Amino acid sequence: MQRHLDQELTQLKEALVRMAGLAEQSIGLSVKALVSRDAEMARQVIASDDAINQMEIEIDELCLRTLALYQPEAGDLRLIAMALKINNDLERMGDQAVNIAERTVELLKEPLLKPLIDIPRMAELAQRMVKDSLDAFVQLDPAKAKAVCEQDDAVDRYDDQIFRELLTYMMEDTKAITRSVNLILVSRHLERIADHATNIAEDVIYLVEGRNIKHHAQDRSPA
Amino acid sequence: MQRHLDQELTQLKEALVRMAGLAEQSIGLSVKALVSRDAEMARQVIASDDAINQMEIEIDELCLRTLALYQPEAGDLRLIAMALKINNDLERMGDQAVNIAERTVELLKEPLLKPLIDIPRMAELAQRMVKDSLDAFVQLDPAKAKAVCEQDDAVDRYDDQIFRELLTYMMEDTKAITRSVNLILVSRHLERIADHATNIAEDVIYLVEGRNIKHHAQDRSPA
Repeated sequence: MQRHLDQELTQLKEALVRMAGLAEQSIGLSVKALVSRDAEMARQVIASDDAINQMEIEIDELCLRTLALYQPEAGDLRLIAMALKINNDLERMGDQAVNIAERTVELLKEPLLKPLIDIPRMAELAQRMVKDSLDAFVQLDPAKAKAVCEQDDAVDRYDDQIFRELLTYMMEDTKAITRSVNLILVSRHLERIADHATNIAEDVIYLVEGRNIKHHAQDRSPA
Repeated sequence: MQRHLDQELTQLKEALVRMAGLAEQSIGLSVKALVSRDAEMARQVIASDDAINQMEIEIDELCLRTLALYQPEAGDLRLIAMALKINNDLERMGDQAVNIAERTVELLKEPLLKPLIDIPRMAELAQRMVKDSLDAFVQLDPAKAKAVCEQDDAVDRYDDQIFRELLTYMMEDTKAITRSVNLILVSRHLERIADHATNIAEDVIYLVEGRNIKHHAQDRSPA
């Protein structure tokens, strides 16, 4: 019985890693579309959200099936409850990537406001956090999870910096306003993605070390 | 055994209703602080987030304990899995209320930009959606849940309208920029709260009717 349960848990972890891969890809593409001014790519991101949503439903069902069939105890039970949460976080990340792609479609209606430097860097960092948080979960590695939590501050600093810089652009030129607000929203969406990765990492630490570090570094926006 | 399980499930529902009450209260106070220009009230909202966070941890533990002790099947199992999700949604709503309170603290550093009409209406609507989504859950009432999903469009229209109006303010007067951006962010936070309530309502429909309406009306921001 435990052997079958272990197989299900392995399958569950693999499914979450695949889903995280899809979310990462959407985040990467949404920002690539913005930087390379590729509306077609942005629309691809919007269309591909269905696959992530479908996967969320399947993973939820897999969790419920495993709970019903094996009635797991203690650690395994916590692992599945956590999988339900991670699943939710990953789906929300996909939504945030869609939001970025939608802002991109708006932004492409006007010429480039300024060369984008910080947003791509912030996106890279957020993507790495998504990947590392899932690695921490699969390997049950609290050190890796802590590293993810620490990176969240760097993302918040980017968000803060981007916010202030774009305020300056708007003050100097009213024609820059719509684009600046849209870029501020892109930055906020990336910040939310990093928050979701941080939630996952905090859950891993809780699962492994049994203590709750959640809600110490709250997802309060810095700007 | 089933009777004990039923008692636990009742306790779980009551805890979620209490937590929803706290979230609703935070949302209401954060917007009241904004409208009445009360920085002290805004800081209260920020401080009270700890209580919501603590409650999330306790409800998670209650879910896990119930799963471990009673190994519930079918409908009861789904109900508990759903409670885990609702719990997460409620905690995120609390975070959004904190975000609004933080924007409020910023906004109070400058004079009132304009009388706030749409934001309080939008907040009222969002609060009602939170309450109704929890009622739908407790009563397992899919009709009430559908009514919540339908209100989400009205919230999106408010968000859209507020976005456009504030863009105009910024275009006309660069001194209005910082306040306008902060009000746009408040509107976005309210829109996210309504999304969380809609998620809960969709989960209720799924639980009762066994079909997934999620991801049809996606939480894509309209503006």
